Amino acid sequence: MDLAEALPLGELAAAFAALPVFPLFDTAYFIVSVLYLKYEPGAVEMSRKSPFASWLCAMLHCFGSYILADLLLGEAPIGYFSHNSSVILATAVWYLIFFCPMNLFYKCVSFLPVKLIFVAMKEVVRVRKIAAGVHHAHHLYHHGWFVMMATGWVKGSGVALMSNFEQLLRGVWKPETNEILHMSFPTKASLYGTVLFTLQQTHWLPISEANLIFFFTMFMIVCKVFMTATHSHASPFAPLENLICPFLFGSVSSGHPSHHHDHHGASHEVSHPPPPPPAKSKEELNEGTRKRKAKKAE
Amino acid sequence: MDLAEALPLGELAAAFAALPVFPLFDTAYFIVSVLYLKYEPGAVEMSRKSPFASWLCAMLHCFGSYILADLLLGEAPIGYFSHNSSVILATAVWYLIFFCPMNLFYKCVSFLPVKLIFVAMKEVVRVRKIAAGVHHAHHLYHHGWFVMMATGWVKGSGVALMSNFEQLLRGVWKPETNEILHMSFPTKASLYGTVLFTLQQTHWLPISEANLIFFFTMFMIVCKVFMTATHSHASPFAPLENLICPFLFGSVSSGHPSHHHDHHGASHEVSHPPPPPPAKSKEELNEGTRKRKAKKAE
Amino acid sequence: MDLAEALPLGELAAAFAALPVFPLFDTAYFIVSVLYLKYEPGAVEMSRKSPFASWLCAMLHCFGSYILADLLLGEAPIGYFSHNSSVILATAVWYLIFFCPMNLFYKCVSFLPVKLIFVAMKEVVRVRKIAAGVHHAHHLYHHGWFVMMATGWVKGSGVALMSNFEQLLRGVWKPETNEILHMSFPTKASLYGTVLFTLQQTHWLPISEANLIFFFTMFMIVCKVFMTATHSHASPFAPLENLICPFLFGSVSSGHPSHHHDHHGASHEVSHPPPPPPAKSKEELNEGTRKRKAKKAE
Repeated sequence: MDLAEALPLGELAAAFAALPVFPLFDTAYFIVSVLYLKYEPGAVEMSRKSPFASWLCAMLHCFGSYILADLLLGEAPIGYFSHNSSVILATAVWYLIFFCPMNLFYKCVSFLPVKLIFVAMKEVVRVRKIAAGVHHAHHLYHHGWFVMMATGWVKGSGVALMSNFEQLLRGVWKPETNEILHMSFPTKASLYGTVLFTLQQTHWLPISEANLIFFFTMFMIVCKVFMTATHSHASPFAPLENLICPFLFGSVSSGHPSHHHDHHGASHEVSHPPPPPPAKSKEELNEGTRKRKAKKAE
Repeated sequence: MDLAEALPLGELAAAFAALPVFPLFDTAYFIVSVLYLKYEPGAVEMSRKSPFASWLCAMLHCFGSYILADLLLGEAPIGYFSHNSSVILATAVWYLIFFCPMNLFYKCVSFLPVKLIFVAMKEVVRVRKIAAGVHHAHHLYHHGWFVMMATGWVKGSGVALMSNFEQLLRGVWKPETNEILHMSFPTKASLYGTVLFTLQQTHWLPISEANLIFFFTMFMIVCKVFMTATHSHASPFAPLENLICPFLFGSVSSGHPSHHHDHHGASHEVSHPPPPPPAKSKEELNEGTRKRKAKKAE
Repeated sequence: MDLAEALPLGELAAAFAALPVFPLFDTAYFIVSVLYLKYEPGAVEMSRKSPFASWLCAMLHCFGSYILADLLLGEAPIGYFSHNSSVILATAVWYLIFFCPMNLFYKCVSFLPVKLIFVAMKEVVRVRKIAAGVHHAHHLYHHGWFVMMATGWVKGSGVALMSNFEQLLRGVWKPETNEILHMSFPTKASLYGTVLFTLQQTHWLPISEANLIFFFTMFMIVCKVFMTATHSHASPFAPLENLICPFLFGSVSSGHPSHHHDHHGASHEVSHPPPPPPAKSKEELNEGTRKRKAKKAE
């Protein structure tokens, strides 16, 4: 039992962690996800010409986290689609956002104050998914730390991690970038979050799961609401990364949101494809050429 | 018990549904599938230069439905390959079609009257696969309607749904189109069929499984034989879709087979990549631009 | 019991097959795999800019065989990552090869005599993986010959079979070639090896598993060490293939390592993308055109 539990905060956190996500929070998650699908270039035309493909894309956006987690753990990727009510709800959201007469529903949900509420609610679901993913993996692999972290991560990131293939479904192919090479804020936050939840699950972090869910959710809500409201693209992790990465990896990790050249997922903080690589030392250049020639021969 | 069962038709349908598909109907399925592989540009050269890759493509064409269904349901995608006799039979068909001296086997099976018989027999297998897929999924997820429909659909469509990746195996990459964005006739028919079979399985459609198999197979045979014999490309679903889609989705669904610009699967009714999108209203254009800028900032 | 067992060779082979691969041989496997990742164009820049993506690529190189085998058999692809010590060891190897001050570690392990030892040790692990894969598949599918061969093959080939997607993770996309279309030496050797091990497992090859492991490992070590040391690219299978393939498939199988145009995996013998196809007979050309027109119509 940690300090926070002695305070009423502990009860608040426990009640918060026990909040049912279906149907209200899930609906908000679906709305934000499908909104961001609609922002993608060509998405509206696709909904008119190939409504089934559009619906399938929307389902990937809404349930991508479950699909990826099930794929990782060798379970049925289609398994979550047995929750008929969730699928019908997501379908209804998709239909209203794309086909509501006079675009009424879209205009309502994208009204900024309303949208900010939905964005906050989506983060509640995201953090709960990370926790559930880590928990589920812990149940299957008691000491599989990397498995827990991977499962939590894909549950938190969702469709972003399969963005190349979600785009392929829409007839778009951008192999030069992907969510792992250039992480957006939610993906990176999910990665850090899954590490925290794994440390908590394995008792290395002395905090209860309910408190961690509460605090991490608050952090995510503040960041995402701020970024959505101000159209800011400063990563809150940048100061810490700029401190640690040069020491560990010899340079600044590329996540700096200087430009927004192309975006591959609406809910993502976009990052510019990396600038030309820094000039290598003469030694490294010669070595690389020599090794490539040797490798070719092999 | 429905009316059709009271007639001898019921007995005919029951006997038809109980027909063993192995080896005769399966052989026909393999022959038509590998024939269509041979039609693909570059397939013959590939069989000479990379026979193993050619064989693997043929296996995808013959067993793609099982692979996809197993992938969806979290079962071993390689599982069906434990049926050694089926694999050996499919291998023999591949070898004869590609390497028979003087192309004798190919000439025999592609003689139109003979080919039409094989096409009809292939449709028997397709419909049986859809029914089996829905049945299997129902066994695993009693109330998983979407799971049943998805499983039946991939069983019916087969390799077409993974055409991008089957082409990738041949060194071809066409990301601008895929079978979901531009559905060919068999894929669309499998989609409608799986809905019917799911409604039947969940007792919403008052017809026995044997009768549904019989009638749907007759429908598929008539359509495919007619389309193959006349080189027609009119979709039998077009009238109904042109009635419903504008009402539901605001425009005609793009499946109109006006041109045959590129084909991605020989057994598929090809559809032209969609024409340039209709001019958007000024409001939609402004909105889209404004939203993309906002999304970039996020 | 076969002849070799009567000799001390049998005891040597048995002791050899019982050698534990962790941690020494596994470390050598990781070192060679990550070395070859480092040779890839852009890999060093990626490690500086996107260290997480670089780490993930290294994990694919080190554990690709387990991931693919689990995918094929419907087990959790992330399952092997529950072996924390292996993952930590591979991570340490990755870090040292990419980030060791003054590149010391890299210089040590790529010193040719040292590298040759590691290459030999890697082949020990490769052959053991093939045997284990066939054995595991045999346990699940007693008579699934093709399943056994496929599992052994992916265990032996590892990341090479998913090279297109490993490259995609690095932002590289080369759809015109893949490891199945143009097999490198290790992939082809794994294919032949898995056939031998399957024949042995099903008692068609009268040799004990220990002896087969021993002799096949010796063969692989001799070939790979020779090819690495001399930068040779002559395939040891070419004479046999040039004898059999024209008879079976009508032409020489394309594996001839005449040019090294592009490489997609450092441990692979590179092969030139196929030259323009040989002139087809007038009959084949007409037939192809006619069939494509007919297919388009369908």
